[in-house]
Amino acid sequence: MDRSRYAEAGVDIDAKAGALARARTAIRSTFNAQVLGDVGGFGGLFRPDFSPYREPVLVASTDGVGTKLKVAIAAGRHDSCGADLVNHCVNDILVQGARPLFFLDYIATGRIEPPVLEQVIAGVARGCRENGTALIGGETAEMPGFYADGEYDVAGTIVGVVERAKVLDGSRIAAGDIALGLPSAGLHTNGYSLARKVFFDTLRKAPGDTVEGLEGSIADALLAPHLSYLHAMEPLLEADLAHGMAHLTGGGFYDNIPRVLPPGLDVVVRAGAWPVLPIFEVLQREGDVSFEEMHRVFNMGIGMVVFASPADLARIADIWTSGDQRWYAIGNVRAGGSRRVIVEPPPDGMSSE
Amino acid sequence: MDRSRYAEAGVDIDAKAGALARARTAIRSTFNAQVLGDVGGFGGLFRPDFSPYREPVLVASTDGVGTKLKVAIAAGRHDSCGADLVNHCVNDILVQGARPLFFLDYIATGRIEPPVLEQVIAGVARGCRENGTALIGGETAEMPGFYADGEYDVAGTIVGVVERAKVLDGSRIAAGDIALGLPSAGLHTNGYSLARKVFFDTLRKAPGDTVEGLEGSIADALLAPHLSYLHAMEPLLEADLAHGMAHLTGGGFYDNIPRVLPPGLDVVVRAGAWPVLPIFEVLQREGDVSFEEMHRVFNMGIGMVVFASPADLARIADIWTSGDQRWYAIGNVRAGGSRRVIVEPPPDGMSSE
Repeated sequence: MDRSRYAEAGVDIDAKAGALARARTAIRSTFNAQVLGDVGGFGGLFRPDFSPYREPVLVASTDGVGTKLKVAIAAGRHDSCGADLVNHCVNDILVQGARPLFFLDYIATGRIEPPVLEQVIAGVARGCRENGTALIGGETAEMPGFYADGEYDVAGTIVGVVERAKVLDGSRIAAGDIALGLPSAGLHTNGYSLARKVFFDTLRKAPGDTVEGLEGSIADALLAPHLSYLHAMEPLLEADLAHGMAHLTGGGFYDNIPRVLPPGLDVVVRAGAWPVLPIFEVLQREGDVSFEEMHRVFNMGIGMVVFASPADLARIADIWTSGDQRWYAIGNVRAGGSRRVIVEPPPDGMSSE
Repeated sequence: MDRSRYAEAGVDIDAKAGALARARTAIRSTFNAQVLGDVGGFGGLFRPDFSPYREPVLVASTDGVGTKLKVAIAAGRHDSCGADLVNHCVNDILVQGARPLFFLDYIATGRIEPPVLEQVIAGVARGCRENGTALIGGETAEMPGFYADGEYDVAGTIVGVVERAKVLDGSRIAAGDIALGLPSAGLHTNGYSLARKVFFDTLRKAPGDTVEGLEGSIADALLAPHLSYLHAMEPLLEADLAHGMAHLTGGGFYDNIPRVLPPGLDVVVRAGAWPVLPIFEVLQREGDVSFEEMHRVFNMGIGMVVFASPADLARIADIWTSGDQRWYAIGNVRAGGSRRVIVEPPPDGMSSE
């Protein structure tokens, strides 16, 4: 049989269908009793259990993986970006107090390579399982001429729910509150354009190369997972211990913290109050990046900032310590400001200076 | 002041923030009383009014615009693809009986051009307004090195709601039902790889050129909007007159109709029962595409197929005629089959042969 003219034009509907069929097992592994129907409908069906909620508010967020994908593609590791994406999205609604319900992904590429597609979807499904989130839909778009050979983009959308009275919008943050930091595993999904420039343009390294100060390869460091803080935060949300949260994504400390800060308050962050991950020290040194820009572009080892009352610190510390969750007291909220973030350099001689 | 190193690496956070700020007015124009908070939170907040529902089921779908974007970008028309995307997504949940609640968009590009970004978002916002859907979130991803200069990708996610007992899953479709077709305005968002190959490779035309059989330019024909069938279908859903619906997207008649067809049934579609749009006649002629492949790749002038009982036809016709909605009786459901779609060629001498 002749290949169809549509296939000649670069779209092979059958190859796409085959890969999606093989990914179905992974997708179904995320299903729970609230998912109605099966994979492959026009839309995904989800019957939420709103019985514990008096006034349920849906919280939704869309995000991508950014140019971390370039590193993943160059390293031939396609199974982690999907989980990065889910975790990123989970954190984005978590900061408003919401628990995830379901997720949908979008994968766009020039020509679908079924084994790559399966790995990407497997990563999304793993991220969903780890966050108790159902993967109820998605789109795999084959767009010849849009993406370079072997490249693809991945985005996703999460929908969660929070009781209206428990929405965290930062309004509970008050002068005197402490800022607690939960450690990141690396760059998460932000700052990759700068990191790639430093490693691959300035230093002329390959992803598999090593560099002084890093234990594994550059790819190992750059592809460290974007962590989800759902399990660390659930007991705090349950007990109403968080006054506000900021997910440190693009824009670092300076742009993300003000998004939840009420007018009239500033936050002082004390660099040196947490161990800066080696990848950031290498980037600062090799890229000759200023202290301020490091904290604007990168998370510097803190993936989530939680604002809480000092009176609750003992209880929070107990929850996190008993859950093996590392944490740091990284700063304070002070009155008389204008929603600024001041990052104080560490005392002389500390490694992150 | 020096440009920051991050800007040197290709990401200008300030330019992005400026464009997003200017797009906020368009985004806010989609808000209704169910939207909580403002533009710019980590996640969008939506308080659904579930009071009319006994057992609300959320229906979600993600989609992209596909390579229709190549034509839009080449023609410099950035304000329509956003509405195409919203309408596509609205239709995808409509076929399951759901009405839209909210939408989120994802725009990815190599370098953000603020005027282009504003036009794209304005198109998304217009599509949302026309479908009574709130645009509660989105991501604008600047990914240097991923997209060619001036190019971008747009995807979106819709979430809607349907009463559980009213979910349309095709199970109500029965032998003897008639298939009604609602007209499309053109290719909608599918078949562009083949269409671009025919016009721009085979015929070596430019988007602004004309071709025999088309009234305006090739770009005019290819950028005709993807229609939403929400307003046409709402009264039918309200009155329980639709047994099932199929949105004719990628895969045309052959792949989309079986997605809602119960086992043991076939659908016979009579080409010739509706006026084939000129763009499809030109594509078939100039591309030398077979009759079958035309109906597999394109919608051929039918954007939505609705299955209904012949006993309800008079009522449906009355609703649509009084609402100025064109429609065609395009086929029948018959027993004894295996979820096949048979497209019968029109009688000799008809233009779509």
